[in-house]
Amino acid sequence: MKVNIFLFNNFETLDAFGPVEVLGGIEEYTLQYTSITGGRVVSRQGVEVETISVKDITSNDILLVPGGQGTRELVNDEDFISHLKCLADQARYCLTVCTGSALLARTGLLDGRRATSNKRAFDWAASMSEEAQWIGNARWVVDDKYYTSSGVSAGIDMTLGFIADQFGMDRANGIAQRIEYLWNSDRNNDPFSIK
Amino acid sequence: MKVNIFLFNNFETLDAFGPVEVLGGIEEYTLQYTSITGGRVVSRQGVEVETISVKDITSNDILLVPGGQGTRELVNDEDFISHLKCLADQARYCLTVCTGSALLARTGLLDGRRATSNKRAFDWAASMSEEAQWIGNARWVVDDKYYTSSGVSAGIDMTLGFIADQFGMDRANGIAQRIEYLWNSDRNNDPFSIK
Repeated sequence: MKVNIFLFNNFETLDAFGPVEVLGGIEEYTLQYTSITGGRVVSRQGVEVETISVKDITSNDILLVPGGQGTRELVNDEDFISHLKCLADQARYCLTVCTGSALLARTGLLDGRRATSNKRAFDWAASMSEEAQWIGNARWVVDDKYYTSSGVSAGIDMTLGFIADQFGMDRANGIAQRIEYLWNSDRNNDPFSIK
Repeated sequence: MKVNIFLFNNFETLDAFGPVEVLGGIEEYTLQYTSITGGRVVSRQGVEVETISVKDITSNDILLVPGGQGTRELVNDEDFISHLKCLADQARYCLTVCTGSALLARTGLLDGRRATSNKRAFDWAASMSEEAQWIGNARWVVDDKYYTSSGVSAGIDMTLGFIADQFGMDRANGIAQRIEYLWNSDRNNDPFSIK
C-alpha cells in the first residue's frame, strides 16, 4: 500500500515525521513525500525535504496531512484545498495531525463528521467547518476513513492506533517497543484536553 | 547558538526530527542540517533531506547525532569517524540519540565516560568502546558536555532534559505542553531498561 505524506512549506516537523516513523515500520507500506508542485519543501524547523508533485502520484492508499504554521495561509489557498480534497477523497484512509484537520475541514470532507485538532489552535481549526463535530477531549478521533489527531506528538499515538486498527494491537505494540515509545493507546485519554 | 544536525544515509527519521522539534522551539537556537559531503541524505524511512557539507560549518555550539541502520557501516568509515570526532570535540554540547552513541564511542570521546544507547542494539553499541561505562538502565545519560539517549523516542525526552539544564524546567515544560508531549523527565526512569 502506498502512503503519501502531503507536505507544504512551514509544516510542523514532528507532525509529519512522528507518524512517518510508525508507518515506516510496516513493511507492507511504501512511503512517498509529495507537495503541490514537487521539489523542495521547508518545514517550520528548517528541514528541507525533497518531494514529488501531486500530479505524479499514481497510487494513494493512505494520505497523511501534517499541520503547522503553513496551514494558516493554506486554508485560503483554493488550489491547495481542491488538490487536498481530491487526494483525501481518493485515499482509502486519510490521517491528519494537529492543524492538518483545519485544512481537511476546509475541503468540506469533515462536514457531518467527528474530528479533533491541536488544542492551542482549536477554535481556529473548528471555524473551518461548522458542520463538523469538533471533539475537545480526544487524543485522536476516528470517523470512518478519517483519523484526526490533537497537536504534534498526538500524531504518533494516532498512527499507532491506526496500525492497531489495521493489523492488531500486537503489531502496534511491537512498533512502540522498537522505537522505545510509551504509547498512549486510549484515544479518549487526552492529557491536554480543553473541554 | 548554532545547532548542527549531523545526518547520513539510513539515519532513523525520529532520532533526528524528535529532537529537532524540541530544539526548534528555542528562539536562541539556529538549526542547520549537515552531512559529510553535503547534498541529499535519505533517512531509513525514505525522507530526502538537503544538507550542507561539514566543510561549510562556521559555527558549532550544539551537535546532534542520530542513530539508525546507517551507523552499522559508518562505525568502520574512518573518514566519517574522524569528521565526527572533530565536530564533537569542537562543539560545546554533543547530543546523540539511539545508536548515534556507537558512532561517538568509536571516536574515543566516550572513553572514561558514562553513556547509553538503544536497548535493542545495546551490546553492539557498547562494543565500540570498552573504556566507556555503558548504562543499561537510563532513559538518557549526561556526562559533562555529552548527552546520550536510549532508542528513538528517548531522544525527545533527552532533548527536553537538555533544554531544562540550559534554560530551566519551566521552559522545557512549556515546549512539552506546546507539542502536547507527555515528557518522561526523569532520566533514570527507563521503561525499556535491559539491566
